[in-house]
Amino acid sequence: MIESLNIRTSGQGLVEITDRVRDRVASRGMRDGLCTVFLQHTSASLLIQENADPTAQRDLENWLNRLVPENDPLYSHTLEGPDDMPAHIKSMLTASSLAIPVENFTLCLGTWQGIFVFEHRRGAHTRRLKIHLS
Amino acid sequence: MIESLNIRTSGQGLVEITDRVRDRVASRGMRDGLCTVFLQHTSASLLIQENADPTAQRDLENWLNRLVPENDPLYSHTLEGPDDMPAHIKSMLTASSLAIPVENFTLCLGTWQGIFVFEHRRGAHTRRLKIHLS
Amino acid sequence: MIESLNIRTSGQGLVEITDRVRDRVASRGMRDGLCTVFLQHTSASLLIQENADPTAQRDLENWLNRLVPENDPLYSHTLEGPDDMPAHIKSMLTASSLAIPVENFTLCLGTWQGIFVFEHRRGAHTRRLKIHLS
Repeated sequence: MIESLNIRTSGQGLVEITDRVRDRVASRGMRDGLCTVFLQHTSASLLIQENADPTAQRDLENWLNRLVPENDPLYSHTLEGPDDMPAHIKSMLTASSLAIPVENFTLCLGTWQGIFVFEHRRGAHTRRLKIHLS
Repeated sequence: MIESLNIRTSGQGLVEITDRVRDRVASRGMRDGLCTVFLQHTSASLLIQENADPTAQRDLENWLNRLVPENDPLYSHTLEGPDDMPAHIKSMLTASSLAIPVENFTLCLGTWQGIFVFEHRRGAHTRRLKIHLS
Repeated sequence: MIESLNIRTSGQGLVEITDRVRDRVASRGMRDGLCTVFLQHTSASLLIQENADPTAQRDLENWLNRLVPENDPLYSHTLEGPDDMPAHIKSMLTASSLAIPVENFTLCLGTWQGIFVFEHRRGAHTRRLKIHLS
C-alpha cells in the first residue's frame, strides 16, 4: 500500500511529521509490519531525531549551516541560488528514506524519537512524500 | 515479524552486532526477504562498515569526534551534558535504519561488511533495536 | 525476490544507475511495492541526488573530497592506500541501502531524482549490489 503525503515547509528547518505518519499507519489498521517513508526531493531530507527539546533541533540546523555555508567558492552549481547547492549537500549527509517497524498497531519509535522533514532551502516549499506500508 | 534486540554499549565507539542479527534471521528460517534493523535512540546510530581491521573503526570514531567536538559554543542544548549534542549530530550524519536483503537463508552482506551500533555517548547504555523480517 | 546487479566504476565519482534499477522493477511486472537497493561494499556508497545538472554532482564530490582529504595525520588505517580511509568515512556519511516505493509499475522518484553508486576509491572497481523487490 502506497500513500502520498504533502508537507508544507516555511524555509530552512525541521518540520515534525510524526503524527501524520502515525495517522496513516492507524488508518490502515496495520498490526505488524514496516513503514517506509520516502522524500521525492534532493534539496530537503528526512531525519529521525529528538523531538522533546527544541534547542536540540535548532543546534542541528545551525551546525549543518556552519558546516555547509552558502557562497562557498567551491560551488559551480549556483544558477538556482546560493541556498541550492548547500541544500543538496545537506541532503546527501542525511536521509532520503526511513524504514520504521510497526508492532502491535504502533510505530516502533523510541521515547524521544520524532520523524522530521528537513527543509534545506530558504523559501517555503510543498514537499511530496510517499509512504509504503507492508 | 518483529523482533527486539537489546545491545549493551560501554561508552563511545562501535559495537558489532552482525552475528546477533544473523542469529535472528537464521532462527526464523527465512529463505529470501528483507531484514530491516531500526535503532530506537537519537544519541546512537547504526552503521555498516569494514569489520576486518579495527584501525578502520577507530579512525571512523576519531574523525567524527574531531568533526563534532564537545563544548562547541554553537550548542544551546547543553543540559544533558557536553557529549549529548555531539551525539545527536553524529546520529544525524549516520543512520537510524538499515535494510539488508536476505538470500538463500543468508544476510547479503559483502565480504568485509559488518553491522554496528555506534554509541555516541560517553557512558554505557542499553540500546534497544527492532528487527523486521519479511 | 532478490536480484544481483554489478556496476563498473571508473574511479571517484557518481555513476547513475536509475535506468538499471527501473529495468529490474519493470521486468518483474511489480505494480505496487518497495524496491530496496543494497551495496555490498564499505568504500563506496549509494545516493539519491539531482540528475539534471552535472555541476551539482561534481560539487558533491568536490565538497566531500575537501571535508575528507587523503593523508590526514589522524588516520591509522593506511595500509590499503591513501584513498582507502577517506572512502570508508565518505561511505559512513552517505548510505548503504535505499528504499524506494513502487507505485503503478513506476519507481516513485521525484522529477529530478536519480539513483547513484558513489565510488570513493581512486581506481576502477566492480561494485556488487542486491535489489530486493516486494
